[in-house]
Amino acid sequence: METLLLNREDVETSAELAAVITAVEEAFAAYARGDVQMPAKSYIDLPQYNGDFRSMPAYMDAGEWDAAAIKWVNVHPDNPDDHGLPTVLGTIVYSDPESAYPLSIMDGTVITEKRTGAAAAVATDYLAIEDATSLGLVGAGVQSYTQLEAIAQVRPIEEVVVSDVDDERVEALVETFEGRFDIRGGSISEAGHCDVLSTVTPVEEPVVGPDDLGEHTHVNAIGADAAGKHEIDDEVLLASKLVIDDYEQCTHSGEINVPWSAGVLGDDDIHAELGNIVIGDHEGRNAGDGVTVFDSTGLAIQDVAAAHVTYENARESGDGYGFELV
Amino acid sequence: METLLLNREDVETSAELAAVITAVEEAFAAYARGDVQMPAKSYIDLPQYNGDFRSMPAYMDAGEWDAAAIKWVNVHPDNPDDHGLPTVLGTIVYSDPESAYPLSIMDGTVITEKRTGAAAAVATDYLAIEDATSLGLVGAGVQSYTQLEAIAQVRPIEEVVVSDVDDERVEALVETFEGRFDIRGGSISEAGHCDVLSTVTPVEEPVVGPDDLGEHTHVNAIGADAAGKHEIDDEVLLASKLVIDDYEQCTHSGEINVPWSAGVLGDDDIHAELGNIVIGDHEGRNAGDGVTVFDSTGLAIQDVAAAHVTYENARESGDGYGFELV
Repeated sequence: METLLLNREDVETSAELAAVITAVEEAFAAYARGDVQMPAKSYIDLPQYNGDFRSMPAYMDAGEWDAAAIKWVNVHPDNPDDHGLPTVLGTIVYSDPESAYPLSIMDGTVITEKRTGAAAAVATDYLAIEDATSLGLVGAGVQSYTQLEAIAQVRPIEEVVVSDVDDERVEALVETFEGRFDIRGGSISEAGHCDVLSTVTPVEEPVVGPDDLGEHTHVNAIGADAAGKHEIDDEVLLASKLVIDDYEQCTHSGEINVPWSAGVLGDDDIHAELGNIVIGDHEGRNAGDGVTVFDSTGLAIQDVAAAHVTYENARESGDGYGFELV
Repeated sequence: METLLLNREDVETSAELAAVITAVEEAFAAYARGDVQMPAKSYIDLPQYNGDFRSMPAYMDAGEWDAAAIKWVNVHPDNPDDHGLPTVLGTIVYSDPESAYPLSIMDGTVITEKRTGAAAAVATDYLAIEDATSLGLVGAGVQSYTQLEAIAQVRPIEEVVVSDVDDERVEALVETFEGRFDIRGGSISEAGHCDVLSTVTPVEEPVVGPDDLGEHTHVNAIGADAAGKHEIDDEVLLASKLVIDDYEQCTHSGEINVPWSAGVLGDDDIHAELGNIVIGDHEGRNAGDGVTVFDSTGLAIQDVAAAHVTYENARESGDGYGFELV
């Protein structure tokens, strides 16, 4: 028996985005039904290297299929300068839940990008206006590419406005997509007046205020992934229909962590976890809603769902390299 | 840059036992000095498959070298009958702490056996009588083989007595080692009257009583790894110089968990953690000591230490298969 090794290119090919979005939606549903096991992320902090490791094990049962995996991932901001390596490097071990056999070991970096885009797509599908055709992006880093790709799967996006302090990054993103979308650089307010906005920045002082948004904009707040990070003004969060991916993670490290810790934003200001909307226990957007916000921190079950799609597709197409590991 | 893949045979070759024992001793020392990061093991319980997954991430700094890794391991007792697979399958991702690059992915099953044997060897070195020449083994499963191999590295073992309810397992162990040792099957009491005894069984009712041991026997209690497991009679534990690998793990899932939870055995009955003996903060065996007991639950830093030796040896000898994973 062999373990299927899937490198970055293999994952790019096999992690078909539409299928990943479906699987991630199933993951949120399974979470709301209580059909997952997801121990808290654990951290190893290495200040001497200005970095950390995170381990994210999880199991999910979607009914028709189930899956287990662990992602071992890091954040080492000095990597590009010091080692010519990305800041984030992920490795996923994807195992058969019934026997624990390691079915596949795969690059986890592309999986992380795709499952994050997929979560935004699922949230957008339930929370954006039905006929959304425009998307704003605040931040033009690697994650913004998959935000656009994924959200365009659930809404007929035509117009895209990109805002970033770094003009070169804006230009690179525009060039990548200008054949497929009416895409241009613009201000935060121009991006925020689109039907959908994704914010993908590492800021700790909010950059999106109430005047920066359209009346019915749906905002995917993606950037905050640690205590202290905060992209969206508290006034917006408090006035919005506010949806989160997970209560523990969001209150500790998500978009709402700063106002929640300060007592400015309370549990009553949170409409629901996304999974509860997916299974119909809470409503998504309704006619009376204005701005909606999705606070995405990224759950281990999203990785498991994306790894499941990747492995199944790779096996079917014969991609990857088989290795007798254990 | 490539990730070095090491399968079971590669690990067997590269995880040279003497070097693993040294590295595991350094791991215990680093732990006692506070130079490790070891989040609690996290569990995914899958009663529908009668199995579980455990994730064990850790970092250790030995001074001359440091290392980080995660072991993703399981216990699926139905595997042999249902899938023709071992009950325990482990996978280790061994990463450069400075950049988080996954230097190696290796089979974790052999690592687990060797690092467990190595811990017993380190404990035996500090706690057995200096001129120990006989070793008893209660339980003749896979772990017993590495107990013998490892303990023979730190004491000149000549005579070995093996006790197991399964005669075939005793015979298999005897046949494997009869060229190198004076080895025979025997009763628990015969095994326990050796200078060193390792117990490696999954029992929940103690099988080793006070009359089963020699006056100065050192006992490595290896089998207990979950709440409720218990190999050694409380009377022995209470009368012994009792050494543990880790307070949290031992009181929750080690040999002492049952009497500790019942309040029969208290913190005052514990002499020290092994690491504190290694760094000289507490004494090992002294002239007045009778029976000594080491309660081994298995720490993630032992896996990191063994993986470090394995990777360094494999790289030097050119073993393994390089794969561009991330």
